[in-house]
Amino acid sequence: MSEVWLNGTLLPAEAAQISPLDRGLLLGDGLFETIAVQGGQALDVPRHYARLANGATLLRLAVPFDEAGMGAILNSVIAANRLLAGGLRLTLTRGAGARGVLPPAGLAPTLMVTAFPPMPGAAPLKVIIAQGIRRDEHSPLSAVKSLNYLPSILARIEASERGADDALLLNHAGRLAEASAGNIFLKRGGVWLTPPLAEGVLPGIRRARLLASGQVREARLEPEALAMAEGLCIGSVLALRPVVVADGVGIPTSLAEAASLADL
Amino acid sequence: MSEVWLNGTLLPAEAAQISPLDRGLLLGDGLFETIAVQGGQALDVPRHYARLANGATLLRLAVPFDEAGMGAILNSVIAANRLLAGGLRLTLTRGAGARGVLPPAGLAPTLMVTAFPPMPGAAPLKVIIAQGIRRDEHSPLSAVKSLNYLPSILARIEASERGADDALLLNHAGRLAEASAGNIFLKRGGVWLTPPLAEGVLPGIRRARLLASGQVREARLEPEALAMAEGLCIGSVLALRPVVVADGVGIPTSLAEAASLADL
Repeated sequence: MSEVWLNGTLLPAEAAQISPLDRGLLLGDGLFETIAVQGGQALDVPRHYARLANGATLLRLAVPFDEAGMGAILNSVIAANRLLAGGLRLTLTRGAGARGVLPPAGLAPTLMVTAFPPMPGAAPLKVIIAQGIRRDEHSPLSAVKSLNYLPSILARIEASERGADDALLLNHAGRLAEASAGNIFLKRGGVWLTPPLAEGVLPGIRRARLLASGQVREARLEPEALAMAEGLCIGSVLALRPVVVADGVGIPTSLAEAASLADL
Repeated sequence: MSEVWLNGTLLPAEAAQISPLDRGLLLGDGLFETIAVQGGQALDVPRHYARLANGATLLRLAVPFDEAGMGAILNSVIAANRLLAGGLRLTLTRGAGARGVLPPAGLAPTLMVTAFPPMPGAAPLKVIIAQGIRRDEHSPLSAVKSLNYLPSILARIEASERGADDALLLNHAGRLAEASAGNIFLKRGGVWLTPPLAEGVLPGIRRARLLASGQVREARLEPEALAMAEGLCIGSVLALRPVVVADGVGIPTSLAEAASLADL
């Protein structure tokens, strides 16, 4: 897993170096995508490209490739790493430039793609509801996958300190929005539900796939729904993981059913 | 301005390189301070250290120096750059490590200090009230100077697209919180006022100095206060700048008075 794509060149990870003036580093001025790889293929590239392009529109950031170009770059990283399964992370920053909050004109964006192996299989999750951090459903940044990940990091640290694996985040209205790095899928009345994007939810790629399949429907979810849930999963492109305890209360998530949802 | 402190070493900026796995770059997982330099001295180091340490407590990040050690590092960068006036930027990230939202244990933080010359003198400011972005007074991250700067960047882009120099940000309660990279000082009834920290305000160093001097008091500020303002300034450690137009309405800010406030 040592070959990295950096601004048009494949090179060993140790040789890939970022400028200390990169606005991605200094200001979190950029976006990323985490893309699953199965059978040596990058999955859902059109959805990832569309989400990245939406984020770039919000940030007024030029995407230095089209959808086919993105696929070609991902394929070259897959090939260089002989990656059959696992994932890719594509990071696009505004690049290195002069000081200032307002992006200077004419910066060359930084584009980096790294590969990583499959995550080890994990036990079902225990989650808490984060007390310190909420999703801001009023911010346009909640709809894009940006480098500003501290809210998720703080929520995950809180979960760890409270003996849990992950945290569910409420939005400012007090409803369930998402987990620290995945969408929420809650089963009620025999139906799998996930909060609408307007709740401050990142438009997850697996979420889109499950909605498109008809297996999941959108619904606002009060935190009280957890106590009556017939199942709960947290999903990203890399995994859909069953939750068996939320805020200390057991949830009767069927591992077999979670696994069948995960196959979609 | 080419000598950079990076993890214990002074080296030319071109030679300073950051790992592509640094969590500061990948996730905005870090903090920074911008420190004014006058007469070859870093100003207000104790206040900067205290703010950085507060942020590090929130992020569960170890600060790799004490206050005296921070002063020594800043002095070495000032000396290496023969900097008489201008500023320093200290960036502290969680460092490079394995993938994951939860910070892995045992990472070595990345510490970088860069120097920059004085900002050119600028004309009085025209500002708008940002429509797209608000300060989140409910987030603990609003109290720390983190690398998650996209809300400010989006506000400044909006200002630029609307023909203004900067943007004032409202909080979710609809009151004035701060500008994109500075605190707000508004004169009313002969008194300079600034919003309390609980409004979602970054605890600015110049703000602290002006409050300590008794020249400024805290008060909640409705956006309607702009129309009746006797003066308006935006202040950071690097400058306190008069505002003469806010959302298209003229403000009779006295440039002489703003300059005298700036001397504190």
